[in-house]
Amino acid sequence: MFDATTDPALRSFIDVAPDAPFPIQNLPYGIFKPRPRAVPRAGVAIGDYVLDLSVLEEKGLFDHPAIRAQRPFSSGSLNAFMALGPAVWEAARRRISHLLQAGTATLRDDAALCEQALFPLREVELLLPAEIGDYTDFYASREHATNVGTLFRGRENALMPNWHHLPVAYHGRASSIVVSGVEVRRPCGQSKPDDGPPRFGPTRQLDFELEVGFFVGPGNRLGEPIPIRQAADHLFGFVLVNDWSARDLQKWEYVPLGPFLGKNFATTISPWVVPAAALEPFRCAGPPQDPLPLPYLRSDEDRAYDIHLEVALQTATMASPYTVCRTNFRYLYWNVCQQLAHHTVNGCNLRPGDLLASGTISGPAEDSYGSLLELTRGGTRPIHLPGGETRTFLADGDRVILTGWAQGDGYRIGFGEAAARIGPAPCTT
Amino acid sequence: MFDATTDPALRSFIDVAPDAPFPIQNLPYGIFKPRPRAVPRAGVAIGDYVLDLSVLEEKGLFDHPAIRAQRPFSSGSLNAFMALGPAVWEAARRRISHLLQAGTATLRDDAALCEQALFPLREVELLLPAEIGDYTDFYASREHATNVGTLFRGRENALMPNWHHLPVAYHGRASSIVVSGVEVRRPCGQSKPDDGPPRFGPTRQLDFELEVGFFVGPGNRLGEPIPIRQAADHLFGFVLVNDWSARDLQKWEYVPLGPFLGKNFATTISPWVVPAAALEPFRCAGPPQDPLPLPYLRSDEDRAYDIHLEVALQTATMASPYTVCRTNFRYLYWNVCQQLAHHTVNGCNLRPGDLLASGTISGPAEDSYGSLLELTRGGTRPIHLPGGETRTFLADGDRVILTGWAQGDGYRIGFGEAAARIGPAPCTT
Repeated sequence: MFDATTDPALRSFIDVAPDAPFPIQNLPYGIFKPRPRAVPRAGVAIGDYVLDLSVLEEKGLFDHPAIRAQRPFSSGSLNAFMALGPAVWEAARRRISHLLQAGTATLRDDAALCEQALFPLREVELLLPAEIGDYTDFYASREHATNVGTLFRGRENALMPNWHHLPVAYHGRASSIVVSGVEVRRPCGQSKPDDGPPRFGPTRQLDFELEVGFFVGPGNRLGEPIPIRQAADHLFGFVLVNDWSARDLQKWEYVPLGPFLGKNFATTISPWVVPAAALEPFRCAGPPQDPLPLPYLRSDEDRAYDIHLEVALQTATMASPYTVCRTNFRYLYWNVCQQLAHHTVNGCNLRPGDLLASGTISGPAEDSYGSLLELTRGGTRPIHLPGGETRTFLADGDRVILTGWAQGDGYRIGFGEAAARIGPAPCTT
Repeated sequence: MFDATTDPALRSFIDVAPDAPFPIQNLPYGIFKPRPRAVPRAGVAIGDYVLDLSVLEEKGLFDHPAIRAQRPFSSGSLNAFMALGPAVWEAARRRISHLLQAGTATLRDDAALCEQALFPLREVELLLPAEIGDYTDFYASREHATNVGTLFRGRENALMPNWHHLPVAYHGRASSIVVSGVEVRRPCGQSKPDDGPPRFGPTRQLDFELEVGFFVGPGNRLGEPIPIRQAADHLFGFVLVNDWSARDLQKWEYVPLGPFLGKNFATTISPWVVPAAALEPFRCAGPPQDPLPLPYLRSDEDRAYDIHLEVALQTATMASPYTVCRTNFRYLYWNVCQQLAHHTVNGCNLRPGDLLASGTISGPAEDSYGSLLELTRGGTRPIHLPGGETRTFLADGDRVILTGWAQGDGYRIGFGEAAARIGPAPCTT
């Protein structure tokens, strides 16, 4: 499917380096405040700037009737825009792309409008892109599920019998999802040493999890499943997700109802939602599925995405981050359309702005594991950092930075960062 | 703690029978529409009437400055009122109680105001009382956890080692919480017969779960736990919860991350939120806790509640419901303040309107089990209904009605009903 908004030859009148994350082929959506006391509004990132969509909306520069009537870009979250569906998303994207193209004078030659609608990225405050009603976390990477299952339950019970038949998932916590940059405090809780009674205190095994999530578009009414063939109509766009985990809390609490306090203290997401349309050229085949899934999970489409992903770590003493994981979203065994079809097959309703995350993405190589638990084999093989420090799990003051991009021909569809620094536990201060 | 609003001698100028659920000592809050096209607003139930609080608000009949400034009763959900905290709740409750007392002329003698603010309960439409940001379901009844654990994992592994040390919980689905009266469609999904491969189809083991939930008041900021001594300040009020469960789906999917599609197709709650203040006279000691919990879960307060609970079942051919379970909220091992302290001890933030449910409440007696799974011993001992029908799990057309009340001296603090009929599966129609 060729789409003019993803043409590698497109150029904006705003300069974008070939390896920079936000070229005109990307146009990710976010919510921002241009000044501390300003009202939150929607924007797209272009090069080193944010284009204020609420200004374009106010000037009547969108021609789609739904956008003119509902003014979704002035509402302070992307939920209303997400609800409008693929036809409106496409119309908006074409319009924004057109206005930013080198050959379009409307914005390029209107200095006053540029002054009003373009803000340097480094000067704005980025907020959560949506009010997230429900957050679901899958467990869709076979390598991750195998690695973690082996550490928690031994090699024999690593993958449960259901794993190859359905995309295992659980409900996460929506309230504690924070945008990149918000400090994450080390959580306290119960853990159980092998040789003693349960104890309370700050987690000793704080970990990251590298994930990619997507925001739901229109969604479905309660009791009305979304068939897999229609699932793509509900993929609004993608973000990076760090599903912070306290492994010692998790290990003690998670049977039989799954993770709770070991996960729900914070989840960090990147502020820019990369539209599904921008990632169309990067769709590819996922891993072969054997056994063949039940019909409601079957589709002939290539629905994996070739997105390079990295995790970098910077301790309080390091001058720059050091990459500890390089992996790819294409390794995901259960794809996003299968996730969406499975989630709704029982009639569960998804709402605009709901977030579905992939679960930790690990690849086959030893440096492609998306969590410290896996990279350090359960804390038994420390990572050696430049400067001489080592890490099994995270220390206070450590900063974790997730990045990702799809590599096009002369441009990148970048995600920016999902980054946060670890603050000390509240129970010890 | 004596509170004039719970005085057994209080009488309203609106007649309420001694065994009716909504006397002046109760004053539960709900959201309703007096007419189909009216704007949703807050009310309290009194006898067979709803008192429209938005009208009282508009007439300036509340004197608390926070209510005058914020007008929470006109907002269409109780979230804003829940956020205001115990001092404002108490002021509002005293005021409403005063206005409804037999000796107060303000409303009693103003026929025009009565016409405007009092609606027969049977004529209004009741809506969800709050926008529920996050829904957490605990597993806090020892009898239930033991019964279900035995059926799912055998007697040896019934109670996991963590169960007596912390209130086990998982995140449920907020989007599919519906108010009493909304039909629940039988979900489809995967299950795994013991002797064959996974199959897809309508659940064959649709069940109810009798629970009591509470709505969170002000809540806490991310990273700032609520100590158990302050937990009661965040208990706004209580509702009945039916955590519908598809046991065959649940059994196949739930390892290792907990229940997902087996639960998230629907959760029914009662429309009236019984204020924590109305239940103060019914606080009592819960079961003894052995081993002694860790200090963050310890409190000397009696924090169980003596609330009688029932589940009734009415098939399509039965003229009236038949009670299949009688139990009591006081059997709960982990109390609501322990739940709240545990939930936030890692810094997880609770927001006004979040719902925390108890998990199925089962007692020691065989007819006090709060689910069909337990009442029928995993479907092996059918329930015999008047008229000759039997049930192991629910059939299409069955109606399940949860009720509950605290028995006072000459009055009852009733919850009304959380009721719903089972509709056919969408995948077969």
